[in-house]
Amino acid sequence: MNLRAGRLGKGMEDEAADFTSSLEFDHHIFEADVDCNIAHTSMLAREGIIPHEVADKIIEALRELKEEGVEALDMDPSVEDIHMAVENYVTARIGPEAGFMHTGKSRNDQVATDLRLALKDSIQVISHELLDFIDKIADLASEHTETVMVGYTHLQHAQPTTLGHHLMAYAYSLKRDYERLQDTLKRVDMNPLGSAAMATTSFPINRELTTELLGFADYMRNSMDAVSSRDFIAEAVFDLSMLAVDLSRISEEMILWSTYEFGVIELPDEFSSTSSIMPQKKNPDVAEIARAKTSSVQGELMTIMGIMRALPYTYNRDLQEVTPHLWRAVETVKSMIRVVRGMLTGIRVNRERALELASSNFATATDLADLMVRERGIPFRVAHRIVGRLVTRALEDGLGPGDIDSGYVDEVSLEVTGDKLGLDDETVRKALDPLENVRARMVPGGPAPEMVRESVAEIKSFVRSEM
Amino acid sequence: MNLRAGRLGKGMEDEAADFTSSLEFDHHIFEADVDCNIAHTSMLAREGIIPHEVADKIIEALRELKEEGVEALDMDPSVEDIHMAVENYVTARIGPEAGFMHTGKSRNDQVATDLRLALKDSIQVISHELLDFIDKIADLASEHTETVMVGYTHLQHAQPTTLGHHLMAYAYSLKRDYERLQDTLKRVDMNPLGSAAMATTSFPINRELTTELLGFADYMRNSMDAVSSRDFIAEAVFDLSMLAVDLSRISEEMILWSTYEFGVIELPDEFSSTSSIMPQKKNPDVAEIARAKTSSVQGELMTIMGIMRALPYTYNRDLQEVTPHLWRAVETVKSMIRVVRGMLTGIRVNRERALELASSNFATATDLADLMVRERGIPFRVAHRIVGRLVTRALEDGLGPGDIDSGYVDEVSLEVTGDKLGLDDETVRKALDPLENVRARMVPGGPAPEMVRESVAEIKSFVRSEM
Amino acid sequence: MNLRAGRLGKGMEDEAADFTSSLEFDHHIFEADVDCNIAHTSMLAREGIIPHEVADKIIEALRELKEEGVEALDMDPSVEDIHMAVENYVTARIGPEAGFMHTGKSRNDQVATDLRLALKDSIQVISHELLDFIDKIADLASEHTETVMVGYTHLQHAQPTTLGHHLMAYAYSLKRDYERLQDTLKRVDMNPLGSAAMATTSFPINRELTTELLGFADYMRNSMDAVSSRDFIAEAVFDLSMLAVDLSRISEEMILWSTYEFGVIELPDEFSSTSSIMPQKKNPDVAEIARAKTSSVQGELMTIMGIMRALPYTYNRDLQEVTPHLWRAVETVKSMIRVVRGMLTGIRVNRERALELASSNFATATDLADLMVRERGIPFRVAHRIVGRLVTRALEDGLGPGDIDSGYVDEVSLEVTGDKLGLDDETVRKALDPLENVRARMVPGGPAPEMVRESVAEIKSFVRSEM
Amino acid sequence: MNLRAGRLGKGMEDEAADFTSSLEFDHHIFEADVDCNIAHTSMLAREGIIPHEVADKIIEALRELKEEGVEALDMDPSVEDIHMAVENYVTARIGPEAGFMHTGKSRNDQVATDLRLALKDSIQVISHELLDFIDKIADLASEHTETVMVGYTHLQHAQPTTLGHHLMAYAYSLKRDYERLQDTLKRVDMNPLGSAAMATTSFPINRELTTELLGFADYMRNSMDAVSSRDFIAEAVFDLSMLAVDLSRISEEMILWSTYEFGVIELPDEFSSTSSIMPQKKNPDVAEIARAKTSSVQGELMTIMGIMRALPYTYNRDLQEVTPHLWRAVETVKSMIRVVRGMLTGIRVNRERALELASSNFATATDLADLMVRERGIPFRVAHRIVGRLVTRALEDGLGPGDIDSGYVDEVSLEVTGDKLGLDDETVRKALDPLENVRARMVPGGPAPEMVRESVAEIKSFVRSEM
Repeated sequence: MNLRAGRLGKGMEDEAADFTSSLEFDHHIFEADVDCNIAHTSMLAREGIIPHEVADKIIEALRELKEEGVEALDMDPSVEDIHMAVENYVTARIGPEAGFMHTGKSRNDQVATDLRLALKDSIQVISHELLDFIDKIADLASEHTETVMVGYTHLQHAQPTTLGHHLMAYAYSLKRDYERLQDTLKRVDMNPLGSAAMATTSFPINRELTTELLGFADYMRNSMDAVSSRDFIAEAVFDLSMLAVDLSRISEEMILWSTYEFGVIELPDEFSSTSSIMPQKKNPDVAEIARAKTSSVQGELMTIMGIMRALPYTYNRDLQEVTPHLWRAVETVKSMIRVVRGMLTGIRVNRERALELASSNFATATDLADLMVRERGIPFRVAHRIVGRLVTRALEDGLGPGDIDSGYVDEVSLEVTGDKLGLDDETVRKALDPLENVRARMVPGGPAPEMVRESVAEIKSFVRSEM
Repeated sequence: MNLRAGRLGKGMEDEAADFTSSLEFDHHIFEADVDCNIAHTSMLAREGIIPHEVADKIIEALRELKEEGVEALDMDPSVEDIHMAVENYVTARIGPEAGFMHTGKSRNDQVATDLRLALKDSIQVISHELLDFIDKIADLASEHTETVMVGYTHLQHAQPTTLGHHLMAYAYSLKRDYERLQDTLKRVDMNPLGSAAMATTSFPINRELTTELLGFADYMRNSMDAVSSRDFIAEAVFDLSMLAVDLSRISEEMILWSTYEFGVIELPDEFSSTSSIMPQKKNPDVAEIARAKTSSVQGELMTIMGIMRALPYTYNRDLQEVTPHLWRAVETVKSMIRVVRGMLTGIRVNRERALELASSNFATATDLADLMVRERGIPFRVAHRIVGRLVTRALEDGLGPGDIDSGYVDEVSLEVTGDKLGLDDETVRKALDPLENVRARMVPGGPAPEMVRESVAEIKSFVRSEM
Repeated sequence: MNLRAGRLGKGMEDEAADFTSSLEFDHHIFEADVDCNIAHTSMLAREGIIPHEVADKIIEALRELKEEGVEALDMDPSVEDIHMAVENYVTARIGPEAGFMHTGKSRNDQVATDLRLALKDSIQVISHELLDFIDKIADLASEHTETVMVGYTHLQHAQPTTLGHHLMAYAYSLKRDYERLQDTLKRVDMNPLGSAAMATTSFPINRELTTELLGFADYMRNSMDAVSSRDFIAEAVFDLSMLAVDLSRISEEMILWSTYEFGVIELPDEFSSTSSIMPQKKNPDVAEIARAKTSSVQGELMTIMGIMRALPYTYNRDLQEVTPHLWRAVETVKSMIRVVRGMLTGIRVNRERALELASSNFATATDLADLMVRERGIPFRVAHRIVGRLVTRALEDGLGPGDIDSGYVDEVSLEVTGDKLGLDDETVRKALDPLENVRARMVPGGPAPEMVRESVAEIKSFVRSEM
Repeated sequence: MNLRAGRLGKGMEDEAADFTSSLEFDHHIFEADVDCNIAHTSMLAREGIIPHEVADKIIEALRELKEEGVEALDMDPSVEDIHMAVENYVTARIGPEAGFMHTGKSRNDQVATDLRLALKDSIQVISHELLDFIDKIADLASEHTETVMVGYTHLQHAQPTTLGHHLMAYAYSLKRDYERLQDTLKRVDMNPLGSAAMATTSFPINRELTTELLGFADYMRNSMDAVSSRDFIAEAVFDLSMLAVDLSRISEEMILWSTYEFGVIELPDEFSSTSSIMPQKKNPDVAEIARAKTSSVQGELMTIMGIMRALPYTYNRDLQEVTPHLWRAVETVKSMIRVVRGMLTGIRVNRERALELASSNFATATDLADLMVRERGIPFRVAHRIVGRLVTRALEDGLGPGDIDSGYVDEVSLEVTGDKLGLDDETVRKALDPLENVRARMVPGGPAPEMVRESVAEIKSFVRSEM
């Protein structure tokens, strides 16, 4: 059916029709649209607004359509959108009585309802993938609670830690990403149906009923708000952008750690590529693309928020342009989780190289300073100055952490403070040994193997409770 | 104290020092920084890590500092940041023992803690302003439950509604903005203190205690995550961006409605300006600036997310550059709420003009179609076609909605379907009268005065429960 | 051929292969890729690097491929990208000698070359469409040099102007958009071929020759820069974003002017839609989508710049993710120009309404003030104050500009300054008449019909010189 | 003087006045504003529009103001903006005749003129700093034409190059950034003055004359366009964003190269910092902040483009909010150039480590493949497969490039193709030696020392011609 017949003399110009068509992305809401029509038609019949026998015919046709799938629809651009295509399908099946399904409903409330149904579904799929990733990270971490590596700040060696501890930083970041999605779900899970074009309808429709039939938690309390708000989309895409950021940070570390220079991990072949001209290369393409696609998801968010800014109420066609960006973000992040998960869980770790880096560059210097505070009661800042001087001098002397004994410490202390410290050699050695160092950090949230095992247990229990 | 003394030969070049300094924005975290130092020092003493008498001296100095305010600090760029400025202050007061306050703590966990404390506070202030705005909107709406106006889709007349109904659309949008901030608060309200530089410490610190002393809900379970995550900032700034979008939509309508052409409202003088060359102008400057600043807040979000993308763990100095964008967003949105609230609650409404627009352009056409479905049992799509033709013909004949009677309807119906409808004149008149039309929309969420009054009550009860 | 055979044990995991594949967008560079291979192979033969007879076979196969089109290629995801697909095609035709075409060349320089060739082409197409649009605007403006309308600042009535003058503001904005594209072309039109993977090659290739064969203005002077820079893409997409902004401003005015309230224009049916529930609607969908898509193009730019930030040299796979955003921006803006052009050139103008708006709301007040300065030599600020008071009083008295005579002016002047002005009635009337007012603005760039005709002539001559 | 006196009853509410004030950023246009007033007043007098003696008094007061500087102005928020502040200053000096300077001029054209004048100046300053940086890079490159290092793709070792060659990649990127700014200058260098509020004026002003007096290249040909376009700002900020991207890439490499793992450079102390808790650290803070601020500049661009989207003509107050983002971008990038320049030119290069990395990981493998093509005439793809296999096997055997001789090559060749290649040992050795390898790349734009020296000469001659 051609809506334009009543009001507009000429058909829309072809390029304009393409330009304004939503059909390219409408398949994302196909099932939701059919479900929404079924629920609305059922309600109309139950409330006595349309005849039961007409409703039954409409619903039967809709059920058949759902079975046949979106390919059963005629999606010619002149059809405008999927709502018309669905109606056309039903009309072809049962004749003009199909028109009753549109009683007290508009494309404005329908598309908002469809989007919310389909997005609820997508959020659940992504949440599940994410829980699975978190779980796998925890498993990997539990294998590496004693795999000593250096921790970085400013990409400079900071302090020793373990790969297990580091991996759990990923897990906790992703846990917050998961929780954000769950909070967002509350604002997606609201039913706009019944708002019609913007002002509800004079038919005595039953919004509680369609809300129940469609499985929404509640219905929206203002019809003008219901048809013109897309904040639930912006919020979901923000969540995805933030999740992508966390995936990009993991990817960045995969890129760095698999360089020849770091040499701490080797990436799985199935997630790498080589070069057409440089056969020795093994490139972290998956990680690079994941890093880049994070910007793409951020761009989708920016676009969505840009579109919504300063839009007068209620529905404006601009809102249609929001949707492709939602689906692109959803699809991109869905893939990102899977490939980053595959890549991370497939790494081979070079434990010797990891330990070597943790041992060779005074990453344990802080602990030597802490030791001085603890054992000799000097203020931290003084200890800091002694150790700063000691490191500078050791580097000049070509000495590594393993070469430092209590005598060397005293020489520097004397120079800086005028006093010796008189620590014993064993104490100095332990302070400077990375594994001992890690073991000593028995603070909750810290790298001591015991602490990491507690974190792993906590996270795994969280995942189980959410699955 | 100059941290560089130990390791680096030369002082930082002046322009580089300016370039990397955070001092311009550090006043936002001044109180939080002092509180954080007090809590940490108390804990150190209680756990026997530092002597009680030293802790007392430090805490006393910190309390004095808090009283004196941020101006008491020496904020020269060479000082680097507020943490050093605070330590310098305490050192000046009590001597080198001040250095004990830094035991088992680093600027990395401290700044993360400070930001969370200060942001919690800002979110609470903004939330309160927002509740107040929502409350005032509900009050205004309750005065306008029978102020008929036309509702728009595509900025074209759609259907009659009331100003009260329209205002409640604002209220429900802002309610979601409020709820988002409350959800975000959960992820802000987590204590990173005790993470030290990134790997906690070998001192037996008590994280539960500082968490309690600082009033956090919980502490963070991974120290590397704790010092290097700023997702709580991105999330808060997203919430503010989304809130700004909703304020921009209100502003846009103020701009449109106060044009000569719409003429539906007049803006309060205190929120308007005039022209230096065109004395007849009354310009909606506040609304325009609010509209523009929405883009600014979106830009802050984009910047923050751009900075965080692909940052390797743990702390990188890049994170410092996140903060100014947070505070700019916070300050901007805080003002926006206030001025948009002042502007909206001060409008003068031209009820006659509003009714005139609702009456003159067939905004009630949908109801005439609904009537045909209800009274004559024809499918909606057929009714839609009849009314479409009727409107086109009435516009050609120069007739308005008030000129249409049942005879005119029948003429068109005969032409379109071959049948008359035989509705009575009174029914047709009521269907086309905007106020009757609005009253008939008794669906929850709809514009009927009774429905809007229910919404107002619901919203006001929500505000009371949150205040 | 499978590049991985040499180095990597396992094939890439399927989802990872999809995730990293560029094939979806590679058709944009199909012709460029073939041309690039032909030029490179010719050069290799001419310089004696590969045998002539091999080169001839390769080139013949490439020419056939170009004729057959992109569909002739096997674009299975396992093929990675179009460069491999092309090589596979040639290999299938002529056997392993196809491998010679890759001598001294890499996918890194090839893709950069392809992108530049294809983008040059796109810029030229868009530039041509843009010139055509500018030309049509000038034609339309020349029909409306005396169509008086009100000009707006802050969306409030400011001063009278003509539609012709207003349209020429569009033309000059678009002219700058055109010039930006021409400037960008200089930086696109540089040949990276010969840079190979990043460090050129030890084969004695001839870069001048391939530059000439491919029609580039020059070749790039540093091979590392050549393979890793995409600033030419960012710049082009910025140009397109800015052009989209200008198109969005036109679209916004189409939306506003076609409202019931403004009523100044009617949009062409072929560029409008109607409502499924509100048959009286005529919606400016094309303009709304154009407005929204402007944010999409801005999002593409943001994404591109986000990807490029902080990328180490030289080629990183991230750069591949830049390309889809380029082509999306190009396709979107290409359509936008066409549909906005179609929409604008098809408007019907309601000259009576336009004049009415210009006449009814003291838009000529500035001129009355100017008149006082000119005729009575009082400072502009004093005149401004008199007219400000006059307008306020006239609005209170319910008078319009046509009701003001010299006596009324004197009353106000006396009140404000203590002096009468003694202007004559005819002078006051002319100052307040919008058409007279417009005619008096004989400043270059101003709305006087003569001035606008000069602008039209200038623009049309510019278009001719560029075509 | 209070503009509101004429039209608006009440003063603007305080928070609204702050919210809409531009004063915080107006100091950037102070000189431009005074110059603009001087030029306009001179013109008014020369054209006989205002009396010469009044003009002389005004100009004298303006000259004094310029001497005294912006501090001489009363910048109270109630003053609105700098234009009013300047007028107030002149009024305080010479009385109400000051009002004549505003004849035929509006804040709308004035602010546009001021912005263009001030931005021209900023672009010239930045351009000069940039040329100086390019020049210094060329100098540094000329010292390192034989400093062999490995070149990267995907952050994996690709092929040997030299630091000199790599530095010239920076130089050519920055050269395009410079050229972009020069192109933009053409669109900044256009005079809007004379457009008045939007429709010029009925005074016979002389736009050629003010254009000449202010040193603009031309005046703008449509007054509505002139007061409402800010594309020149967006374009300049795009240029700065792109320049920032190039600086961020340099910064990223400084961060990577100065890690313990890469160890190729040491950063200058004056551009580094240390840690409060880890005394051994030397942190690349300047590079990190530069990397982060790149996102800030991109955010400014995004904000500016977001504000301009869909703004109806002509001036809207939104445009005021564009300006702070311009100045922030300008100031940020100005500092970035300086500090990145200081950092880069102060690095200490570890030539041994650079050579070691280039020698140890088969970065020369491509050349071995090229050699097979050249010496034995086999297709490149076959050679690629042999070398790919050779590298894999060498890595398995624990062999480095220096361990490979012709016998080893033949073994692999036999295995892959069934044939030996029979290259001699010396040829194989030379192919695998990084410096020989670099010397062999005598292609223009390539790393051969001779080629880099040519680039250096070209760039230095370019800089000289532009200075």
